[in-house]
This record gives sequence, C-alpha cells and structure tokens, in this order.
Amino acid sequence: MILTVTLNTALDVTYRVPRLHAHASHRVADVAERPGGKGLNVARVLAATGHEVTATGFAGGPTGAVVRDLLAASPGVRVELVDCAGTTRRTLAVVDESTGDTTQFNEPGPLITSAEWSRFLSRYEALLAGGARAVALCGSLPPGVPVGAYATLVRAARTAGVPVLLDTSGEALRRGVAARPEIIKPNAAELAELTGSRDPLPATRAARRRGARAVVTSLGPDGLLAATDRGTWRAAPPRTLSGNPTGAGDSAVAGLLSALVEGLDWPERLVRAVALSAATVRAPAAGEFDPRTYEEVRGSVKVTEG
Amino acid sequence: MILTVTLNTALDVTYRVPRLHAHASHRVADVAERPGGKGLNVARVLAATGHEVTATGFAGGPTGAVVRDLLAASPGVRVELVDCAGTTRRTLAVVDESTGDTTQFNEPGPLITSAEWSRFLSRYEALLAGGARAVALCGSLPPGVPVGAYATLVRAARTAGVPVLLDTSGEALRRGVAARPEIIKPNAAELAELTGSRDPLPATRAARRRGARAVVTSLGPDGLLAATDRGTWRAAPPRTLSGNPTGAGDSAVAGLLSALVEGLDWPERLVRAVALSAATVRAPAAGEFDPRTYEEVRGSVKVTEG
Repeated sequence: MILTVTLNTALDVTYRVPRLHAHASHRVADVAERPGGKGLNVARVLAATGHEVTATGFAGGPTGAVVRDLLAASPGVRVELVDCAGTTRRTLAVVDESTGDTTQFNEPGPLITSAEWSRFLSRYEALLAGGARAVALCGSLPPGVPVGAYATLVRAARTAGVPVLLDTSGEALRRGVAARPEIIKPNAAELAELTGSRDPLPATRAARRRGARAVVTSLGPDGLLAATDRGTWRAAPPRTLSGNPTGAGDSAVAGLLSALVEGLDWPERLVRAVALSAATVRAPAAGEFDPRTYEEVRGSVKVTEG
Repeated sequence: MILTVTLNTALDVTYRVPRLHAHASHRVADVAERPGGKGLNVARVLAATGHEVTATGFAGGPTGAVVRDLLAASPGVRVELVDCAGTTRRTLAVVDESTGDTTQFNEPGPLITSAEWSRFLSRYEALLAGGARAVALCGSLPPGVPVGAYATLVRAARTAGVPVLLDTSGEALRRGVAARPEIIKPNAAELAELTGSRDPLPATRAARRRGARAVVTSLGPDGLLAATDRGTWRAAPPRTLSGNPTGAGDSAVAGLLSALVEGLDWPERLVRAVALSAATVRAPAAGEFDPRTYEEVRGSVKVTEG
C-alpha cells in the first residue's frame, strides 16, 4: 500500500461562468466539487493506475464530510482521515469560459489543536507499520500544525523503513528536507526559494546537498530534472501539451512513487511521472488524467543523462 | 406567528480579499457564512424585532444542513424547512476591500421533485392552519417547482384567511399577483418587467390592477411608494444612508408584515418598513440591521399622501 498524507485537505469547487466581470453578479450554471489537496490528488491517480492506496490527513466540519463522501465514492482509495473540530477549507476556481482563464480563491485551513496533531501522529505511525511501502507528504500545513511537522513525519517514516517523498514549499520544505527524505519534488519557484538559485541544474544539486536522497524538479511543460545518487537525468514529453496544468505535479508524484514501489530504476520512474503529468494536463481536473494521452506519451518520453 | 416561505434557500458565503484581480489567485483571510434567501432574511429581522416567526421552504444536502444549523443558532426563528434530496445552493459574495465593491456568484438551486413539492404544500397548509397571522412568500423558485407555485400558495393563504405578501420577480410574480395577494413589494426593475412602465406611480397603480390589494414599490435610497385601497403614499428616509443595500428590501417586507399583524395603518407600516430598510443598509449583511439607525430613522421618516 502507498500512503498519502494531506494535512490541509480541501473541497475543490469549480464554477464555470460565460465571462467573468469584476464587481458584477453571475449566475453559475455549472458547479463541480472534488476532493482537493495535493495528497488526495496523488491518491486518486495512484488508485486509477491500479495501486493500493490509503489517504490520511485531517477532515472536519461540513466541507470535511463532503470531502470524505467524495473520496469514498472515488474507487480504490482507502480513507483514513482524522477528524478535526475546525472546518476543512474550500478552494474555489472560477473558470471564465470566454478565455479559459481561472480566478482562484483559497480559504484558510482549519486550526488544528495539539491534541488533534497527536492523534494524527498515532494514526500515521499505525499506517506506516501496517504495510505502507512508500509515503507521499504533500501540500501546505494548516494553521496550528508545527512548522517542523514534515521533518517529524519524514523521521517517523525513516524509522519505519518506509521511503518518503516530500512535496511542499517554503519553511515546511526547508525543515522537511533536513530530515533526509528519499525524494523531494519542487517546482522551479519552490526550488529557487529553497536554494536561492534560479538555474535548475545547480539548484537541483544544491537542494540534494540539503538532505534529500533525490531531488526531482518540475520544469513545467519541459518535463522533469532529477538529481539522484545514481546520476542526473532530464525527462521531457515528446511535445508541449496544451490544457490545464493543475494537478500535473501531483500526478508526477504518483508516477515517481508507484515506480519506486515496483522497483523500477530512475529513467523508468521519470518516464512514468512525465507521462502521467502530461495526461493530467489533458484532463479536466487535478487528480484525474487522460488514459489515451498517458499511453501515447509513455512510449515517447525522452530521457537524457548528465 | 408570522410565516416566511423561502423555496430557494441559500448558504450565503462572503469572502473578503484585499483586492480582486481577475484571473489571479487569492488567499481569502476572512470567510463568513449566513443563512440566505430572502424569506430567511425576513425571518431573522422579524425575530430580532421581537416577533414570533416560523421559516419554511426547502433545505437539502450538506449546505442545507449548514443553513439549518445557522438558523437554529439564530435566536427566535422556528425552523420548519422541508428536506429535499438536492443540495441547497450557495451564493458567494467576494468583497474587494480596496473599493468596497462586491462580485457575486449565484449557484442554481436544487431540483425539487413533485413529491417534495407535495410534501411542502402539506407542511405549508399545516402551518397556515397552525396560527399564522401573515405570510411572506419570498424570492426565486428552485428548478422543478411549478412556475405557478406562488399563485397556489397565495390561494391557500387566502382560503385560510391569512394575509399574504409576495416578493418575487418575472413570471413567478406575474402568476402570483393574479391570485390576489394582500401586498406585493416589487423594486423598480421588477415593476417595470411586470407592467411595461418605468414611471413609478403609474406602474405601481397598474400593478395593483393586476390583482394585488396593495403594491409597495421600493425606490431604493428614496424609500417606498404604496398604492393601496386606502390611498397612495410615499415614504422617504430623512437622508440617504451609505452602506450595503443587500437585504434592505427584505427588511422592508419584515416591517410591512409586522406592522400589518399589529393592526397599524398604512403610514405607520411604511415608516417601519423604511426605517428597517435604512437600518439594514447600515448593517454588515442581509437579515441584520443596526438598531441605532432604526430608532433614529423611525422618528424622522417623511410620509406624504397622494
């Protein structure tokens, strides 16, 4: 089983409007709701590619109940979310159909108490001991969770002998990487914030020196750059795919972890991650991917060493 | 007891952002949720002015449960909402704090089945028979409810001998007014749509000839214009009050109905309606009013006959 951790789960709401006019009133004809938060996207992609997956993190209040219900209806994801007294946040994407542009509103997460954090830690340790073969730690920390939370979770996974991938940003990433995760997967902005360098190859290598065994940097439509203990690779899709990039990074995480669990080597891991990312760009929402694009791209990802 | 009917209840969500940028991402620091829909605003204002009030209509799904919980926490409103299988809509107001302007997003209501509509009619008739002294029928019809719904509800109230105020628009108003309600309360746009005239006095009189015993037209910051079987009056606040006009019309309905139930004559009803409207403009949200403004304006509303 692969375990995904989403401390700041969300209910992702999408409104489609014919055209967005600031300071006007809009009738929303089309409302969609999905479980949100990076780790839940990873879990849904893993389940859709046939992997056993368990999703943990926090859920609370009426939106938390909706997230639980939507996840329960999402085939193959075992739900091990821990209740919190606060209310799970909503994230709202307003899509302007005249341009395809999105205006995003992100609510703050619920305040997590120290008792709730302790309860989560117990659940997490039980799940690690209960057959987890890899862990993904994904996304932002809700208020109240200690800023060193990911360092704690990385160390617990290492103690349990479970490889851990960390995908977060800012201080949570800085502290987490020092605890020596197996993989971190920053995008260019997160990497620059961590290392101070905007040049991908030196920055990726610099990030590795901060403690991660491997650093896989997302280069957006240009693919992935990986610095590992076995070497350095670039993996690129055969062509630039237009679409919605939301969730592409989460699908890359799903690809990296599933390939790791299957014992594949780095080039094969990167091929899978790039193909799942590209297939997510062609799908309507994060946590989903277009199977035809996945099959097509998988056969033609270009991996170069050095 | 005064009965308010809100067939298309809502969860009103307000996001405050420092500045709204179309097609950008926003962190929402401040999220507020209130029970919404015109009749629920009327009910809250009636309760806050010390009147016994019962609120009925439909509520369903997770948002419906939140609306019920918020209403239950709102002192003095007896909640008699009928469950529906669909999900109560959200309305989202995004307030741009740099300008005070609001961008509004209104979800569609739940689809009401004919069995749910029948269950509502039974509940409504029981509430009419159970001591209702006046009824307010407010707002839009959710999908699935017959367009002649308000005509049916007006006739049932008349049969039960309970005076009924209708506050809606478009075809629902056109059909409802033909069933001869005691009062309708259009704004200028609704009145123009009903009568084809944009001249308030002739249009108000023309609306009366369509079947309402009295027509009270909202003139926005200029107050109210009433055409009744006892005469015609204008009622204006002593000065224009700046603020948030959302819900001012609902507070006027609350004022008209509470004064009717107390046996007050038309000039006194209009004074109360204008003062509650003005006090709502000075409050942060619909369904609320500023008591000091209410007391202040009540003593200085100018009523002129003819």
